Amino acid sequence: MIATGVDRVGMKHGAGGRAMRRLIEQVFLRGAGPAAAAMDDGAVMQLPGGGSLVVTTDSHVIHPIVFPGGDIGRLAVAGTVNDLAMMGATEPLGLTCAVVIEEGFPIGDLARIQQSMSDTCAEAGTQIVAGDTKVMRHGELDGIVINTAGVGLTWRPVRDRGARPSDVLIVTGTIGDHGMAVMAARNGFQFDGALRSDVAPLNGLVRAALSAGDVHAMKDPTRGGVASTLHEIADKARVGIVIRESAVPVRPAVRAAADLLGIDPLFIANEGKAVLAVPPSAADAVLAALRAHPYGRDAAVIGACLHDGPGTVVVDTGFGRRRLSEPDGELLPRIC
Amino acid sequence: MIATGVDRVGMKHGAGGRAMRRLIEQVFLRGAGPAAAAMDDGAVMQLPGGGSLVVTTDSHVIHPIVFPGGDIGRLAVAGTVNDLAMMGATEPLGLTCAVVIEEGFPIGDLARIQQSMSDTCAEAGTQIVAGDTKVMRHGELDGIVINTAGVGLTWRPVRDRGARPSDVLIVTGTIGDHGMAVMAARNGFQFDGALRSDVAPLNGLVRAALSAGDVHAMKDPTRGGVASTLHEIADKARVGIVIRESAVPVRPAVRAAADLLGIDPLFIANEGKAVLAVPPSAADAVLAALRAHPYGRDAAVIGACLHDGPGTVVVDTGFGRRRLSEPDGELLPRIC
Repeated sequence: MIATGVDRVGMKHGAGGRAMRRLIEQVFLRGAGPAAAAMDDGAVMQLPGGGSLVVTTDSHVIHPIVFPGGDIGRLAVAGTVNDLAMMGATEPLGLTCAVVIEEGFPIGDLARIQQSMSDTCAEAGTQIVAGDTKVMRHGELDGIVINTAGVGLTWRPVRDRGARPSDVLIVTGTIGDHGMAVMAARNGFQFDGALRSDVAPLNGLVRAALSAGDVHAMKDPTRGGVASTLHEIADKARVGIVIRESAVPVRPAVRAAADLLGIDPLFIANEGKAVLAVPPSAADAVLAALRAHPYGRDAAVIGACLHDGPGTVVVDTGFGRRRLSEPDGELLPRIC
Repeated sequence: MIATGVDRVGMKHGAGGRAMRRLIEQVFLRGAGPAAAAMDDGAVMQLPGGGSLVVTTDSHVIHPIVFPGGDIGRLAVAGTVNDLAMMGATEPLGLTCAVVIEEGFPIGDLARIQQSMSDTCAEAGTQIVAGDTKVMRHGELDGIVINTAGVGLTWRPVRDRGARPSDVLIVTGTIGDHGMAVMAARNGFQFDGALRSDVAPLNGLVRAALSAGDVHAMKDPTRGGVASTLHEIADKARVGIVIRESAVPVRPAVRAAADLLGIDPLFIANEGKAVLAVPPSAADAVLAALRAHPYGRDAAVIGACLHDGPGTVVVDTGFGRRRLSEPDGELLPRIC
């Protein structure tokens, strides 16, 4: 008897929020041992010869497959490079790439996706080392699904549960760009010219940050946005979090679109940003290192971790404080 | 301009045969470097601390998801454990599991799949260390796709290109069981009671073989069957291959069904078998070790590698010799 409260999978179960976490806990982790209890999109394993192996996996179902600022190929490579980087493995050993394709999919599109993956690998200094190809009949799959798994080595693993009270929270740049660009592309919104996904491999940026100072926790705010990431950090490390709303960098076009649609940018997916929890003594150095990198120019301190209210996230609006809810699901299906 | 001769992906491009190989070469490996030129479902990477890291990936799209002898969960774990084992990594460090689920999929079925994965992991002595969950809308995906990637360590990597002239070819048991069981289940054939998939994790069996003697090349004959595997071994090692048809172990029920349908068992998919190329001096010891293991009881010498006719595969029927064609596609879509 599975206590998910429902008996069929719904869209929210794949949306990176509370509903997905509950499904994973109650189905995939049922009766599992301690290693699986830490189940996440990435894992760290000690190697006998020293160092740690980091392994991650991510399937990409984004629709449309080409969007302003990127495509599913760049997303698949950057997503996995970033998952590795978030755990401290900034020089990936290699990625695997497994594609499931709908019969009738244009081979020209496949070649463009391959080129985009290859270019993004080159930018990140890695490569695809193994692959798998499956085809489903026309109508059995809408287009293409790309799974990328990644392996990397690190001598200094970073965990998303490592945040400590008094840590400073830094976001590496503007938020909401990816989700808003995909939403605009999908719905043909007029303001879409100014909206571009931020999809990018962040391993170089993270390497710069880690060289500059100590980082206690790190996470990329993809599905569910910064709100979901802050809840994950607060929950796993049992700290409280307060952020200043006015300190969160948001591009004017994203702000305008979000206002128009009545969406809080904190809930919108990103594909080229990270949230870092850093001890106060290292904050200035880490922030400077981030800002010196092209992908970190708009990095900003957005808040801090506290002893009080473990597991809760509060937004200081300048006029008062409000609890930030944990997203139950993602606003937009197939955002990544 | 992609020289695949067609401009859209067809079912045969996902079928493990010649058409798939051509698609991979002409799309995925276009302009790729030497590492990608060895692109396969698995890769071997040297570790700085010594030893080699083996990485594999496989997406599973089998239909139906439950079939006589197994289900998609057992298949996903065994498939990846076997890919690792074929390269010499018989003690997997861990697997990743990324599921893409159709909205409305029964959560009870998901729980049964999870249980099956967990049981098969226990049998293979490994575990799922990281996961990802995505949901597509009803009608965008037929059921569920499961990707498993695997990582393992080895100090003695085995390659499928390692076969040498005069090597003895051993198959670890009866062939055609998986494909015939799935075909029967899908079509409601009357004889399906006697047909069961052989899906099983082979790392224990392979460990026994590697302890008994030298193994030059190893490959699991999944999509495209033993025929496809022999062609891959012959092609990659530039050796000729001759097999004796009467020496190939086939269960009576599989033989009967294959005869009825006019299919050569050599072309039918397996999920619990391996083909090994072994130097003559080690053949007896390796064969004995295989036969002493529950999954290798029916192991048999089926042929040999030759200097003559590099890249070709010949079947000795007892009455004469015929060239064995390389499968262009798999007989059955979504066999794994």
